[in-house]
Amino acid sequence: MAGTMKQVVLAAYAQGNPKSSDFRLEEVPVPQAGEGQILLRTLWLALDPLIRFSLDEKLISGARHMQIGEPMFGPTVSEVVASNHPDYAVGDIVETRTGWYEYAAVDPETVDYRGPPRKLDPELAPVQTALGALGMPGQTAYAGIVDTARVQAGETVVISAAAGTVGSLAGQIAKILGARVVGIAGGPEKCAALLDLGFDASVDYKADDFEAQLDAALPEGADVYFDNVGGDVTLAVMERLNRGARMAVCGFTAYYGDGMEGPGPNKLPGFFRLINSRQLEIKGFAGIMAGPEPIEAIAGWMKAGRITFPEVVVEGLEAAPEAFSSVFSGNSFVGKLLVKVAEAG
Amino acid sequence: MAGTMKQVVLAAYAQGNPKSSDFRLEEVPVPQAGEGQILLRTLWLALDPLIRFSLDEKLISGARHMQIGEPMFGPTVSEVVASNHPDYAVGDIVETRTGWYEYAAVDPETVDYRGPPRKLDPELAPVQTALGALGMPGQTAYAGIVDTARVQAGETVVISAAAGTVGSLAGQIAKILGARVVGIAGGPEKCAALLDLGFDASVDYKADDFEAQLDAALPEGADVYFDNVGGDVTLAVMERLNRGARMAVCGFTAYYGDGMEGPGPNKLPGFFRLINSRQLEIKGFAGIMAGPEPIEAIAGWMKAGRITFPEVVVEGLEAAPEAFSSVFSGNSFVGKLLVKVAEAG
Repeated sequence: MAGTMKQVVLAAYAQGNPKSSDFRLEEVPVPQAGEGQILLRTLWLALDPLIRFSLDEKLISGARHMQIGEPMFGPTVSEVVASNHPDYAVGDIVETRTGWYEYAAVDPETVDYRGPPRKLDPELAPVQTALGALGMPGQTAYAGIVDTARVQAGETVVISAAAGTVGSLAGQIAKILGARVVGIAGGPEKCAALLDLGFDASVDYKADDFEAQLDAALPEGADVYFDNVGGDVTLAVMERLNRGARMAVCGFTAYYGDGMEGPGPNKLPGFFRLINSRQLEIKGFAGIMAGPEPIEAIAGWMKAGRITFPEVVVEGLEAAPEAFSSVFSGNSFVGKLLVKVAEAG
Repeated sequence: MAGTMKQVVLAAYAQGNPKSSDFRLEEVPVPQAGEGQILLRTLWLALDPLIRFSLDEKLISGARHMQIGEPMFGPTVSEVVASNHPDYAVGDIVETRTGWYEYAAVDPETVDYRGPPRKLDPELAPVQTALGALGMPGQTAYAGIVDTARVQAGETVVISAAAGTVGSLAGQIAKILGARVVGIAGGPEKCAALLDLGFDASVDYKADDFEAQLDAALPEGADVYFDNVGGDVTLAVMERLNRGARMAVCGFTAYYGDGMEGPGPNKLPGFFRLINSRQLEIKGFAGIMAGPEPIEAIAGWMKAGRITFPEVVVEGLEAAPEAFSSVFSGNSFVGKLLVKVAEAG
């Protein structure tokens, strides 16, 4: 395939929260599929918050380290437009990890550490759900609520970043298990949307009376906390956890820019005090642990109308930097933030 | 009983670590046993670090709050010297909670939230073991290693404050379960004593090369961390925990003086990063959960010579303030710190 394509590269390492100026749009030649490779045309791009770990000048965790000028990586749904590989035919729609670019020539065996590109059935569900409810975020929500937090009917479950992809699914799964579910999100729009999704209560962490809202939503405290954020929101929830409560740590967006240390005071003493005096159980987990069963369970619940998966779509690759940055600065989106890069076919 | 007795009262609330000048020795009349009461003569007093929680001017946790001028409370082994209660006879030796005074007139039903004074059999074991291996500290060590951390044969277990009462018992129980056990303590004397107790390795947190010692002791990382201290020691251990490791939080002496916040920087971001990336399980626990079975198990191991319970005895009630303060300033004791207040009989 001749011609040029758009791609987004890293222009500067992130200082604290990423900004759209940390990225740069470029025009480059469309790659060719080499021997054994397939050429993918990006249809959908998911702006995964975990990418933040790769944007520090000095790498802190075991994440992949981006170089300045390198095209951004990310989860994608793509169409096979050329194939030199027996397992893939032109027209196949696949979910894998390429990046913030319009075309990618990849080796199916090595493109994604999770395995070869997963072929999707467009008749079963809209293909972009493979980046959300029927993909990694769905697996993560299921792993946290079912396997890690072991939510039981009648328990009270609190979910932070509840309007996010994982949070909104986690809350709905907890409801299906018979729990009372309280979601924390930023702003009245998101809080109202959570009630529409079936949450029993929602609390606005940006409101002046956040702690009073939390008290009102938790008259008997909480038994489970599904945490995506860390920071002051988490410390406020922890003070309302019941003895023996479980806390599933899915993410900690409040600290993604901090490395190992943030500005004082040191909040770790209070954290230890709560762990010990409340006999809390705190577990970190990752969706990858859960295997394929969660996807089947969630697909069934979606078909039965018990899970709604809201999407917010921004159009065009050039919108990715601004949309990605908004994840950290507190946007007003509810559900999965997707970039629609192209139409299939 | 006529005459006077010695008692130690709180003279000042603790600022950070307790000092001996926070306490005052007084001479007061010996109390009388009222209706339904028994008069106890204190034989042994245990200097429980948890008492620290009661010494803040502004109470932080749910601990009992000491008033200035009030006699100190604490776990004791005593002799019944007068009885107006049918369940207790003069000469009985009991374990309960009275305090830092020579005599106590108490209602057996209400003296201790855990239950009435527990009668001891001096033929079975020295009575002061009821304050250590065969009492609350033994229950705590057992609960942490067996129930909370679920130590398995072949695992590597790290124990902080390993020369303390609970730590030294926890390490020996982990050895009995077939684990490789690394103890952390302050100073070469304590570290040598841990090897005598059967620990596989010991690490001196006061040494300049603490982190290098820790690396050498943990060539394959650690699977379980039994934590008594918190602070920098804990953060150093956490960086060496394996994926999926369990951390049993028994105490956090490094933070007892800090309340909910300590001086910056904020170490909580790194803590969340480790929880999440290593998929750690962190659980707070208390010995009281464990029931009477641990005492029977430990008594059996002691009888079989598989558990040694070192004691350090200071003589006389007036030595209690200095000895208690040394717990926080880093003493060189190994094992249980006891005050011998009087001889039985």
